[in-house]
Amino acid sequence: MTEILISEVGPRDGLQSIKQVMPLEAKKAWIAAEAAAGVKEIEVGSFVPPKLLPQMADTPELVEFAKGIEGLNVVALVPNARGAENAAKAGVHGMSIPFSLSETHSIRNVKKDHPAMLAEIAKVAEIAKDAGIHFAVGLSTAFGCTIEGAVPEDTVVRLAVAAAEAGGQEFSLSDTTGYADPAQVKRLVRKVKAAVGDDMLTTLHLHNTRGLGLANALAGLEEGITTIDSSLGGLGGCPYAPGASGNLVTEDLVLMLNSMGYDTGIDLEKLLEVRSILTEALPGEPLYGFTPDAGPMLDYKERIAR
Amino acid sequence: MTEILISEVGPRDGLQSIKQVMPLEAKKAWIAAEAAAGVKEIEVGSFVPPKLLPQMADTPELVEFAKGIEGLNVVALVPNARGAENAAKAGVHGMSIPFSLSETHSIRNVKKDHPAMLAEIAKVAEIAKDAGIHFAVGLSTAFGCTIEGAVPEDTVVRLAVAAAEAGGQEFSLSDTTGYADPAQVKRLVRKVKAAVGDDMLTTLHLHNTRGLGLANALAGLEEGITTIDSSLGGLGGCPYAPGASGNLVTEDLVLMLNSMGYDTGIDLEKLLEVRSILTEALPGEPLYGFTPDAGPMLDYKERIAR
Repeated sequence: MTEILISEVGPRDGLQSIKQVMPLEAKKAWIAAEAAAGVKEIEVGSFVPPKLLPQMADTPELVEFAKGIEGLNVVALVPNARGAENAAKAGVHGMSIPFSLSETHSIRNVKKDHPAMLAEIAKVAEIAKDAGIHFAVGLSTAFGCTIEGAVPEDTVVRLAVAAAEAGGQEFSLSDTTGYADPAQVKRLVRKVKAAVGDDMLTTLHLHNTRGLGLANALAGLEEGITTIDSSLGGLGGCPYAPGASGNLVTEDLVLMLNSMGYDTGIDLEKLLEVRSILTEALPGEPLYGFTPDAGPMLDYKERIAR
Repeated sequence: MTEILISEVGPRDGLQSIKQVMPLEAKKAWIAAEAAAGVKEIEVGSFVPPKLLPQMADTPELVEFAKGIEGLNVVALVPNARGAENAAKAGVHGMSIPFSLSETHSIRNVKKDHPAMLAEIAKVAEIAKDAGIHFAVGLSTAFGCTIEGAVPEDTVVRLAVAAAEAGGQEFSLSDTTGYADPAQVKRLVRKVKAAVGDDMLTTLHLHNTRGLGLANALAGLEEGITTIDSSLGGLGGCPYAPGASGNLVTEDLVLMLNSMGYDTGIDLEKLLEVRSILTEALPGEPLYGFTPDAGPMLDYKERIAR
């Protein structure tokens, strides 16, 4: 069975997109419960100034807690070199920096144009190297941008190569805006792999804004993608609000992959129970997904044994 | 560009699953508006006794109306030879008979075991041939049954061959229960095509019960499927109710296929406007889909021109 790594990004991407601040103890319970269900990697937070994102202020404590869970890969987002230093200090196993391929989006979001971002990537790469920490670059808005519109595929390839030259060791393609379609996923994965090396592009970060999340994941798997980001309950984006981007739902992704015979290592029934932590700690926050209501496949056990 | 036929089954599969009876005039408006948006085939109803399904009582009038729309392929479901005679009398372009591969389901649903169903298929094939009408067999519960559980793939192949020998000219594989996964779709399409002939299995009828509808459609396309059934607004099944099976949503399917560069002939923006006919004629009936809320891709026009 082919192993696929599901990287749970809810505690970072999910929580940073909602207004409520989840209490530290609830976050710990969430992380522990997902790990117990078999999730092997969790992005526990983001090393951003707490003033900007108070939801992420407890990231160092979460890193420390999560590192105590055996076998769990603890990763965090870093927006810049300062964040990378703090992440290294906290002792993360891995860090990733988002690099928006839409320059307009990059400037609006982090006040850096592409040359400035590439310089930052080089600094972060150095910090990660010195600390012996795994380092990835998230190529965001790779499938299009709400501001710039289509991002030409040549631009994606050119900037991926530039980021690799700046020291990026591993890449993810991120459909920040929910514009990706399966044909585009296949083309772009192929092109970026050809440009930076087959093993360098491992990950897809997908949103389910237009309902194509699972189809896009499938397209990526067929091109050799081995890691897929998702968020429990699709936390962090209402797919029904214009402009908002629902995360790919971890429960539905696990259902699909387990049914297909991939080895995710995740027990779907245990995973479904973790949702109650979110509903209790985040009252009124909408959660998404089909599997939680429809239930696992009837012949689920039979399928995974096949 | 590869042409893909989207067969709108909402007026049959959608309406027969809900309690409200849609007025004839609203059905006509729906069918006319979808055809105007570019939909080339519509299953307008079912030739069942009106006592059993009052929602379908006006099927003959709808067939007559729909045949007046230029370029529209007008199809209907027939449960048996009696229905096929009525469908032929009404002048449908095509008819299909569901053949449940789970014998328990078949007996409970239409009170016929497999030998009785194969005899019925032979009669319907004869009626269709005499009337010069296209005739398809819908292999239902092909991906599993809520009563019997998994339906062995060898059984699917054996019964498809038996149905072909009984006179079936064309087949669809139907995920009646929402159990299909993309790997299973690929395997089963390949096996059935190999057994009955590549051109004989053209169609997938998918439900979105567990959110895998589009991923399953994608898997089918990659194996040479050229027709996909779907229902506007996913009408006819609440994916949030245990056991119920939401139809694949036409709007989301069109978004995906158009974005990928397939030629569906359907104008997504015009299609989205058709939803208002459903919301007006079926007050309180839930409609589904991501595209209606998130909107088309920003670079939609650019993508389809690519």
